[in-house]
Amino acid sequence: MEAPNLDFLFYPRSVALIGASNVPGKIGNSIMRSITLRFDGKIYAVNVKGGEIEINGKKFPVYKNIKDIPDEVDVAVIAVPAKFVPDVIDECGEKGVKGAVVISAGFKEAGRADLEEELVKRARKWGIRVVGPNCLGVTNLENGFDCNFNPPERQARPPFGKVAFMSQSGAFGAAILDWAASHEIGMSKFISLGNMADLDESDFMAYLGDDPKTGVITGYIEGVKDGRKFFNVAKEVTLKKPIIILKAGRTEAGAKAAASHTGSLAGSFKIYEAAFEQTGVLSAKSMRQLFNYAKALAMQRPAKGNRVAIVTNGGGAGVMMSDGLLESGMKLAELSEGTNKKFAESIEKGELPEHMSYKNPIDIIGDAPSSRYEVAMRYALEDPNVDVLVVIALFQSPALDEGIVDAVARMREYGKPIVFVAPGGEYPHRIARRIEKEAGVPVYETVEDGVDAVYALVKYGEWLKENGRL
Amino acid sequence: MEAPNLDFLFYPRSVALIGASNVPGKIGNSIMRSITLRFDGKIYAVNVKGGEIEINGKKFPVYKNIKDIPDEVDVAVIAVPAKFVPDVIDECGEKGVKGAVVISAGFKEAGRADLEEELVKRARKWGIRVVGPNCLGVTNLENGFDCNFNPPERQARPPFGKVAFMSQSGAFGAAILDWAASHEIGMSKFISLGNMADLDESDFMAYLGDDPKTGVITGYIEGVKDGRKFFNVAKEVTLKKPIIILKAGRTEAGAKAAASHTGSLAGSFKIYEAAFEQTGVLSAKSMRQLFNYAKALAMQRPAKGNRVAIVTNGGGAGVMMSDGLLESGMKLAELSEGTNKKFAESIEKGELPEHMSYKNPIDIIGDAPSSRYEVAMRYALEDPNVDVLVVIALFQSPALDEGIVDAVARMREYGKPIVFVAPGGEYPHRIARRIEKEAGVPVYETVEDGVDAVYALVKYGEWLKENGRL
Repeated sequence: MEAPNLDFLFYPRSVALIGASNVPGKIGNSIMRSITLRFDGKIYAVNVKGGEIEINGKKFPVYKNIKDIPDEVDVAVIAVPAKFVPDVIDECGEKGVKGAVVISAGFKEAGRADLEEELVKRARKWGIRVVGPNCLGVTNLENGFDCNFNPPERQARPPFGKVAFMSQSGAFGAAILDWAASHEIGMSKFISLGNMADLDESDFMAYLGDDPKTGVITGYIEGVKDGRKFFNVAKEVTLKKPIIILKAGRTEAGAKAAASHTGSLAGSFKIYEAAFEQTGVLSAKSMRQLFNYAKALAMQRPAKGNRVAIVTNGGGAGVMMSDGLLESGMKLAELSEGTNKKFAESIEKGELPEHMSYKNPIDIIGDAPSSRYEVAMRYALEDPNVDVLVVIALFQSPALDEGIVDAVARMREYGKPIVFVAPGGEYPHRIARRIEKEAGVPVYETVEDGVDAVYALVKYGEWLKENGRL
Repeated sequence: MEAPNLDFLFYPRSVALIGASNVPGKIGNSIMRSITLRFDGKIYAVNVKGGEIEINGKKFPVYKNIKDIPDEVDVAVIAVPAKFVPDVIDECGEKGVKGAVVISAGFKEAGRADLEEELVKRARKWGIRVVGPNCLGVTNLENGFDCNFNPPERQARPPFGKVAFMSQSGAFGAAILDWAASHEIGMSKFISLGNMADLDESDFMAYLGDDPKTGVITGYIEGVKDGRKFFNVAKEVTLKKPIIILKAGRTEAGAKAAASHTGSLAGSFKIYEAAFEQTGVLSAKSMRQLFNYAKALAMQRPAKGNRVAIVTNGGGAGVMMSDGLLESGMKLAELSEGTNKKFAESIEKGELPEHMSYKNPIDIIGDAPSSRYEVAMRYALEDPNVDVLVVIALFQSPALDEGIVDAVARMREYGKPIVFVAPGGEYPHRIARRIEKEAGVPVYETVEDGVDAVYALVKYGEWLKENGRL
């Protein structure tokens, strides 16, 4: 499938909000606030009532009809009652609008499939591509184009980064954005898919596959709209970048709930599982897992194999990591003789402590400073039997200095993927942010999150290898 | 087994730190700082060098020998090189000390089983009970008695609360404390078990079973010291309060790592699983799961059955919750005819919205204010087919007001367990803290965490019912 170029939807030069309102609390007011927050394209307000709207001291004249705007309009964001939407689409068409983001609810999800069909018919006539209806619209974290009506004090916006997210649930999508913001996960573009009357998850998947600002595509899906289309698009896109899907409606009860929520026939999860497997899509079981996968793949290259080395200053965490990796189908690397020799010599020289263990997990003991980490990390990464390195640091130990940040950064030279785990509270969190920013290595709060990260790197690496891309 | 009364270890009137130091960074200095931070019992410093120690402007004379202290001493915290420990134990014995917390390493874990045996022999002679050696000691969050040598700026201390935690890994235990502090999970007592030369996990389990300040007992275990003892104690204690164990060394690789870490023969996990099942111990697979379980059981009563009702303002979250519950062996409650009628009538009256779904999950739609939640929660809790209520709130929606806090508090009258899920970032987090404090209902950040919570309440309820205690 030819990927649709939807740049006009995410990078409009000019936007009209139809249904703009001056009344705080109204959706048409909230969207106006969101769009004007950071977006620097042209913004026009439209409402049959006319008048003027003031947002943060800035005044916008209100056009009674989109056709009155004395300028071209790329995208119309529509937030008027459902019954008016088809006619508004016609007006947009006459104006030459390329994309319509229909926020309004009251279509198929409310028993008005007829109104939704009419909407699509009109849009097709004019060649307008439609997002929604019944959605939170799109948010481009890069240029600030944001038609999400949830106010920023309720729902924070994440920083700009490499993860794109699309959601069949608007409310859950909003929670995800808020969550990603507080976990400092950088996002490229967010799409609330709504009823998918026109553009569906596969269209956006295809577009994001070609989007240079998106490194990882993620999505919350209850049911895909067109199975074959999804299959074909996913299979192509995953050769370029990872796709991670949280499929809800996996169980009978979940599928029933999905049917009454989005009307999707969730279908047997086994079929989805098989399709994901055959197209290289990573299937996440939870929101946290989705982002554990996404963060790893956004920051590290995929692994060439499943043999993992662990360097830790805490034996217990090493045991738990071993369990988690094995339970997820990974292997603990068997260190080569050469590596064993290097460790033995460093211990002899007093560079490493006598009571440490260099069986894998490599336990450099509770009083390890960063210099000891550096030696152990190098030996592990130099070993041809090691595909991925997991570094665990219990920063509660006062022996561990912040030199660890630079030490980890220096490990990039080996070109192997690294996952860092730093359990605890505020102090580890602070160093973790530095390791992510300065060394480009993803840091996780718990052992189990780290296991997810390794799994994603290995699993996606396998897919690329199978297809001759790694 | 008669539970040992170890109150003297957690509520000493007077403590001597043997190996106290004036040099910042030394363990004997760090422990002195920890003990003096909040503990208001008598504190004595002991070091063969004598002199004086100043901590935060307060001066302590240093006794050259514990026997020189002109007062009774309940507990000795010992942080001197391993080879001196047996003789120090003798001096403690002469002084009439009841408990010794041996922080020092260099015993069995370092190939000196002989020194450890000698330590135990001497302690037995004097009737001294020993924690450790090779441990972080004990922390009583109630009175501030804290001999953990990690400084508070590296490892925060959690608030006082109902969860006790014991750990066979000191480093991981420290990370857990730090993590619990940043997640505001209240703890009663923390025990770093170390080599368990004398007191072991079962002794503490038995003691904590009788401890009125502990509501839930949790532990990180690589291998139990005495299987039969553990079995008998656990079986008795779980009838009084829940025990949650994170057993590491579940896989072959994990078991090998455990053998080189604590020297525990981890044994087949299947045997542990069977023992946990037969004694009513909840088995957690991860740190987060352990605390998800613990928080639920600390704040809510166990469930009388596994039929769960879900009230949500987001359809997608309801679908995910349905999946998670089913996948964990719970059931979605089938609401009674009476309940269906109540919902239908409220919709007729306009008290509830037309397009909501009152099949379970009960989806009260994105624009639900707290008053709508209250009606739906009541109807669900009044239903005889409902054992547990899950409330999901996506606070990103500006329609949801803070009246939800009082509404949830009013649900206590029904006496059924409630779990609250509020995904997102800062704003939901702030309301969540209020719901926990003011309504006493545990709030979770993700759907999957909420599933853990329900599982724990149901599973522990089943155990109590089987044994005629619920």
